[in-house]
Amino acid sequence: MRLPAVQTAVGLDVALVGIPWDGGTTNRAGARHGPREVRNQSSLMRRVHHVSGTAPFSIANVADVGDLSVNPIDLADGLDRIRKGMDAIVAAGAIPLSVGGDHLTTLPVLRAVAKNRPVGLIHFDAHSDTNDRYFGDNPYTHGTPFRRAIEEGLLDPRRIVQIGIRGSIYDSGEHDWAKEQGIRIIYMEEFVTRGADDVMREAREIAGDLPTYVTFDIDCIDPSMAPGTGTPEAGGFTTREAQQMIRLLTGVEIVGADVVEVSPPFDLAGMTALAGATMMFELLCVIAKQVGIRRNAAGAPDR
Amino acid sequence: MRLPAVQTAVGLDVALVGIPWDGGTTNRAGARHGPREVRNQSSLMRRVHHVSGTAPFSIANVADVGDLSVNPIDLADGLDRIRKGMDAIVAAGAIPLSVGGDHLTTLPVLRAVAKNRPVGLIHFDAHSDTNDRYFGDNPYTHGTPFRRAIEEGLLDPRRIVQIGIRGSIYDSGEHDWAKEQGIRIIYMEEFVTRGADDVMREAREIAGDLPTYVTFDIDCIDPSMAPGTGTPEAGGFTTREAQQMIRLLTGVEIVGADVVEVSPPFDLAGMTALAGATMMFELLCVIAKQVGIRRNAAGAPDR
Amino acid sequence: MRLPAVQTAVGLDVALVGIPWDGGTTNRAGARHGPREVRNQSSLMRRVHHVSGTAPFSIANVADVGDLSVNPIDLADGLDRIRKGMDAIVAAGAIPLSVGGDHLTTLPVLRAVAKNRPVGLIHFDAHSDTNDRYFGDNPYTHGTPFRRAIEEGLLDPRRIVQIGIRGSIYDSGEHDWAKEQGIRIIYMEEFVTRGADDVMREAREIAGDLPTYVTFDIDCIDPSMAPGTGTPEAGGFTTREAQQMIRLLTGVEIVGADVVEVSPPFDLAGMTALAGATMMFELLCVIAKQVGIRRNAAGAPDR
Amino acid sequence: MRLPAVQTAVGLDVALVGIPWDGGTTNRAGARHGPREVRNQSSLMRRVHHVSGTAPFSIANVADVGDLSVNPIDLADGLDRIRKGMDAIVAAGAIPLSVGGDHLTTLPVLRAVAKNRPVGLIHFDAHSDTNDRYFGDNPYTHGTPFRRAIEEGLLDPRRIVQIGIRGSIYDSGEHDWAKEQGIRIIYMEEFVTRGADDVMREAREIAGDLPTYVTFDIDCIDPSMAPGTGTPEAGGFTTREAQQMIRLLTGVEIVGADVVEVSPPFDLAGMTALAGATMMFELLCVIAKQVGIRRNAAGAPDR
Amino acid sequence: MRLPAVQTAVGLDVALVGIPWDGGTTNRAGARHGPREVRNQSSLMRRVHHVSGTAPFSIANVADVGDLSVNPIDLADGLDRIRKGMDAIVAAGAIPLSVGGDHLTTLPVLRAVAKNRPVGLIHFDAHSDTNDRYFGDNPYTHGTPFRRAIEEGLLDPRRIVQIGIRGSIYDSGEHDWAKEQGIRIIYMEEFVTRGADDVMREAREIAGDLPTYVTFDIDCIDPSMAPGTGTPEAGGFTTREAQQMIRLLTGVEIVGADVVEVSPPFDLAGMTALAGATMMFELLCVIAKQVGIRRNAAGAPDR
Amino acid sequence: MRLPAVQTAVGLDVALVGIPWDGGTTNRAGARHGPREVRNQSSLMRRVHHVSGTAPFSIANVADVGDLSVNPIDLADGLDRIRKGMDAIVAAGAIPLSVGGDHLTTLPVLRAVAKNRPVGLIHFDAHSDTNDRYFGDNPYTHGTPFRRAIEEGLLDPRRIVQIGIRGSIYDSGEHDWAKEQGIRIIYMEEFVTRGADDVMREAREIAGDLPTYVTFDIDCIDPSMAPGTGTPEAGGFTTREAQQMIRLLTGVEIVGADVVEVSPPFDLAGMTALAGATMMFELLCVIAKQVGIRRNAAGAPDR
Repeated sequence: MRLPAVQTAVGLDVALVGIPWDGGTTNRAGARHGPREVRNQSSLMRRVHHVSGTAPFSIANVADVGDLSVNPIDLADGLDRIRKGMDAIVAAGAIPLSVGGDHLTTLPVLRAVAKNRPVGLIHFDAHSDTNDRYFGDNPYTHGTPFRRAIEEGLLDPRRIVQIGIRGSIYDSGEHDWAKEQGIRIIYMEEFVTRGADDVMREAREIAGDLPTYVTFDIDCIDPSMAPGTGTPEAGGFTTREAQQMIRLLTGVEIVGADVVEVSPPFDLAGMTALAGATMMFELLCVIAKQVGIRRNAAGAPDR
Repeated sequence: MRLPAVQTAVGLDVALVGIPWDGGTTNRAGARHGPREVRNQSSLMRRVHHVSGTAPFSIANVADVGDLSVNPIDLADGLDRIRKGMDAIVAAGAIPLSVGGDHLTTLPVLRAVAKNRPVGLIHFDAHSDTNDRYFGDNPYTHGTPFRRAIEEGLLDPRRIVQIGIRGSIYDSGEHDWAKEQGIRIIYMEEFVTRGADDVMREAREIAGDLPTYVTFDIDCIDPSMAPGTGTPEAGGFTTREAQQMIRLLTGVEIVGADVVEVSPPFDLAGMTALAGATMMFELLCVIAKQVGIRRNAAGAPDR
Repeated sequence: MRLPAVQTAVGLDVALVGIPWDGGTTNRAGARHGPREVRNQSSLMRRVHHVSGTAPFSIANVADVGDLSVNPIDLADGLDRIRKGMDAIVAAGAIPLSVGGDHLTTLPVLRAVAKNRPVGLIHFDAHSDTNDRYFGDNPYTHGTPFRRAIEEGLLDPRRIVQIGIRGSIYDSGEHDWAKEQGIRIIYMEEFVTRGADDVMREAREIAGDLPTYVTFDIDCIDPSMAPGTGTPEAGGFTTREAQQMIRLLTGVEIVGADVVEVSPPFDLAGMTALAGATMMFELLCVIAKQVGIRRNAAGAPDR
Repeated sequence: MRLPAVQTAVGLDVALVGIPWDGGTTNRAGARHGPREVRNQSSLMRRVHHVSGTAPFSIANVADVGDLSVNPIDLADGLDRIRKGMDAIVAAGAIPLSVGGDHLTTLPVLRAVAKNRPVGLIHFDAHSDTNDRYFGDNPYTHGTPFRRAIEEGLLDPRRIVQIGIRGSIYDSGEHDWAKEQGIRIIYMEEFVTRGADDVMREAREIAGDLPTYVTFDIDCIDPSMAPGTGTPEAGGFTTREAQQMIRLLTGVEIVGADVVEVSPPFDLAGMTALAGATMMFELLCVIAKQVGIRRNAAGAPDR
Repeated sequence: MRLPAVQTAVGLDVALVGIPWDGGTTNRAGARHGPREVRNQSSLMRRVHHVSGTAPFSIANVADVGDLSVNPIDLADGLDRIRKGMDAIVAAGAIPLSVGGDHLTTLPVLRAVAKNRPVGLIHFDAHSDTNDRYFGDNPYTHGTPFRRAIEEGLLDPRRIVQIGIRGSIYDSGEHDWAKEQGIRIIYMEEFVTRGADDVMREAREIAGDLPTYVTFDIDCIDPSMAPGTGTPEAGGFTTREAQQMIRLLTGVEIVGADVVEVSPPFDLAGMTALAGATMMFELLCVIAKQVGIRRNAAGAPDR
Repeated sequence: MRLPAVQTAVGLDVALVGIPWDGGTTNRAGARHGPREVRNQSSLMRRVHHVSGTAPFSIANVADVGDLSVNPIDLADGLDRIRKGMDAIVAAGAIPLSVGGDHLTTLPVLRAVAKNRPVGLIHFDAHSDTNDRYFGDNPYTHGTPFRRAIEEGLLDPRRIVQIGIRGSIYDSGEHDWAKEQGIRIIYMEEFVTRGADDVMREAREIAGDLPTYVTFDIDCIDPSMAPGTGTPEAGGFTTREAQQMIRLLTGVEIVGADVVEVSPPFDLAGMTALAGATMMFELLCVIAKQVGIRRNAAGAPDR
């Protein structure tokens, strides 16, 4: 987004950060290259949101702190490095807005963001990502992060809403555990019937006014609009619907957000990276508006 | 779909089968490579339908019987080989669910499936495929199968409904013959106004409770979501709408179904093959549910 | 569209013409190759419109007059050559239907079409293209044509409607000048709420019954359906919506029309060129119908 | 090549012609689209050969007579139409230089060119194309044209040389028939050892000073340089080597030539079509030089 | 290669096997998808080698035993599963010819093949793959397998030759360790000067008449001919040179061989997979010839 | 190349710099995007040259000074900005190694580098680029830079050598002017006969020991290895040959160098950008070695 590149998050309101890691991907890897291409496409973003009129870079102190250091071949060390990098951003008082990387990267991010208390989750995705084990006994894959996060007390399951879930599943009981925890799953079919306004009203109620994380898996968008992802599922959102939903997040107390699973090797003409950059910009506008409101409430001048 | 590969259809409820032949294609050939790529992408399908909860492989005995033997350079022999292959499947008592191949492949399939009495047809397509002659006097192309099938008594024209027809035509009288036979053409514009629920209610009424074949030409989907096809027409269905329509086939007495015109050489990132595999899975779920109901009605236990 | 290629527009009702020039493009050039690929894809168009039943080539005298002579490396000379080429077409009494080229090509076209009086404008686009200056003091780029056209008295600003505008902007005041002139901007968000019928009713009212030009920037369509363009913006029209809007132009007094910004180097599988050719055909059907009505009113026989 | 498009070959020395037909292709069809893309890429050709200094359009009367009429779904009629089209060109006294199409198109071309006496053949290819039958009893495929041509007395087998043959074969006796007829097969391995100069010296000796046809199957070039073809074989010529060989045809009495098996659906970035257009230009320079020599010998002035 | 698919290697002379695993890849993953695409392209292979006349499927008992079971997210378990799968093949008395997978897969293969005594190695590659540690202290990556194999006593370093090494390196001492062990590195530059015959004469001398493994990293080929790989290096072999070198392996006592690092997500038009399948076929012909010789020596009849 | 990004060239021995401008391109634009993609691919370069053992970043002070400011729509201003940016680098005492951009960018670079005296030129290209005028009277295009540079006294024509020239030309006298000035043109055909060693010996003699500029147009490489360029010509160098020639520049007194005409919109899988980055690295190694020699001669320690 043609932002200044800085070394640390100190003094920032919002820290954009890349997490080039896909160590949790079981089938089609490639999300590790996501941050670079999303940055490339983000050069098409400009300064002001045409609908809300929000000028995020004027309201809030925003910068790109670069990519976190990762480890492509050691899963445990990889998760640890991501958590440490995020700890530094959170400690500096900045809200992290990251671009993955596969969905397992959200787990160490939550370990940093939700260190002191569980947070809520608004989760856009084709998949629930609350499986238990893969390949025998592997607890950490891009299909399991939210189960682990609930077990670790990072998420309050009754404040989780998953939107856009669809696609065939391994087992008809696959979503039972999630529902038993109190997670609200809004399948794509329900979205089609109710529409964005109604669905997001419910999502905001579920999140309430407590700290909430927003995670956006690019595979919630239809493969024709976002082919560059590891686990495409036909029948997804249009980018237009996705933009509309993000704009309707206004009022949620966002403590961090991410866009994940952009996988350039499977992308076409940068289409998915452009969609990812667009969602990053929409999220940034929502977060910046909230920063501005808080600052004004505190009597502080605009940046 | 990670199914067992078997040699014969004996003992199967549903036989998945490939028809790698596009001898009826007048312009952009390539559908002959459809079965291979649809199989490749079908490895992304899992075991249970997330909406209906149908687990087709548990309810019904399903297997992949491989590709039919074809002849790429002799049209008459090609049609004959396909009919013979299908005869064997039908004789074994299995419902064929095939993946083409171009749309002319549906003609020899109907010769096998409708050998004893005409059947109804629910037909998703951008084109009516009821032309008479091409290039002088050629009666058999992928633009003529349903005219031939009606002439041969394989289809009951008053039980045919075509959904999604659109695109410029050669002659304003091109659809007159079809309408005179009693075929109901639902143009894309009518679909946009009425929606899937209403359109499929009418389709089910047209099919009634008699044996019906379902044919799904992938070019009914918009070229942005299914570019890999020989005759793309802008302004098509979304995959989401197509899935919704197939799910609304429940209750139709399906005696066979196919997905045709997936043409990998024109595809992008496997997008069209994925759409084709998804439609195959949706069709399979509908058919398996019907197998299960019939079996239960017969007092037989689930598989 | 398999039309006769002719040397001059004399005797034509509608002249199809290519403008292979993108000298006004500031970032991703390539629209200069648009005419060739749109022609290639137009071979998939047939003779009759399936909805309106219009057979444009029967009603009106239509031909392809080839590409205008341009100059890729001298902006002033480039603009001049385009205007001269268009002057000849207009002088011959034909309605020009051109395919660009970037959006700056519309400026010299308007200099020819609106030589004698300002015209109205129905403008489909993701961008308003009413900026003032780029790179210091450059008045002529593909972001400025309509500001220049208003200043030159070629357009009546109160008879301009822009439909589909969206995407982040450089400055929150970017659209202020346009609105002050009386231009009606219908943002994408408003379209989503109101729908095509309602929006086009307003557009026809704005155009009134005076001469009006129609310009269609392919980037108004979503990048997943039209990736081959210089400035893609997520969240656009579907091709189906765009077709619907063009059909609703019936009754507008069209004195010329164009499709611009098709950029083959960024295209995928000819998808954008096919969308462009489809819009050309839809525009042609609307214009031909109007030619037929005028001719009948004049007591002249059909062609 | 930016040549005038004319309707007949009357008065031409060399007639460029397209044969958009691949009815003999058994596996990956697509060569039917070859002529269009080769024409597109030929716009990068200029007027003078940089090595020989030949300016073919100055020496000889050259024009593009368009595409022959074909029939994509009836093999016998397809072959017949091609022969008739070629008969007209030959009757007009022009040397045909055609672009296919698959290699079976060379058979009806030879029926026209060698109507009165057998001709010699210089044949660049990865495959010998002298098989007998495919799929049971099909005598006409793109793997059999030269066997048929010999049987029909169109080729003098002792004046045939095949250069670049390679790749695994179905049967170790596959080339025996060819060798028994007296055909000289120069495998790729022999070419690597001897080099272009030496190989082409032998080829010219085999052709002698009698009428000879030159056929260039684009798959003789390595798949990395010409991926857009139906039957790629690793380990082929570089385009540089191919150009060198064609230039060394000088002195051969060429009565016709073609470039076949360019298949755009499998091409990358127009690379194969560009290679095809380049070979067409090289062949044209050789043929034009020969036309000029003959004309000078006849005391006629240059064109 | 249209071979029978069998469940076990018992009774086979040569077992073709896929290893879909790239857990050792530090940058651009994707080789896990190699086996599937190489199999797809291998359908273009036929039965007889056109140079040597070898008909491998007649001489030797060859079959495809499918893919080994792997674990994409646990490196240690992944290595273990590969070794176990290979143990079974070796125990059955078959020579394994595998397709990877990244180059780290060769390590567990060697643990099976060289269980009882160190073997020699003929190694075609752009990289020496004898680094020590990556990302701190990770001993197992696709840049380290041969260092580990030497340390584990699986390879006799004085019987190792590496051919085609090139590309910039991290440290000028990077190859020192390898040379100290006695490994012979033939840089690309030396190959260019000496040619294939001379280089392979030396390679055969280094291997001697003791058991030797052959490993072929597809990135030894130039990126223009094999772009689908994780670590492309400009300036590589042509496929023609690579074929020539493999044919010159005749006489080496091959106990196993592989083709690795084919990465379909980065491939173009299946070009790299085709190159991989071609090298597999060439290796198979060499191995089958050796099987035939041994069998004849033992007085056994041909298969 | 993972180099530090710095703001000015002060203190540098070699300044890497991007020139994202293609205002001189008459047909297929896109080279303006070259610098970004070459930088992307340069992340595959490592620290030490494997043949010469040169470690350029240890010997010389090298950094990336970013992209020059350009103007995409005003040719005169564009040329001026490039010259000013280069003036600053030259004034700082650094040797510029730039990546274009189209070949016209070399003209303003020479205006800075050869400000005080004419320099020699070693020029790798498929085209001579010494034309006079285009489109009437345009003196500045990517086909004319070296004619202008000679006229302006920036180049000493008797110290110019052009290597790899090939492809059809507009006029047989096109190269006459160049030859009359004393320029030595080594056509591709001569290179094929003589080889790299011999050709480069002559090139070094022509350059002598006076200041010389090296310009590398990526289209000198074959289109199969470098498809991403505006004016591809079949029959080019392999990357291996190009690397070999650059290494043979050792001893030339290089005062600046560039790689131009890398055009990402026409590229495949980053292949051309990788070739460009590789040539940049090879050039850097040659220049750094020369810096080291000069420094040692001056008694200065290594960096």
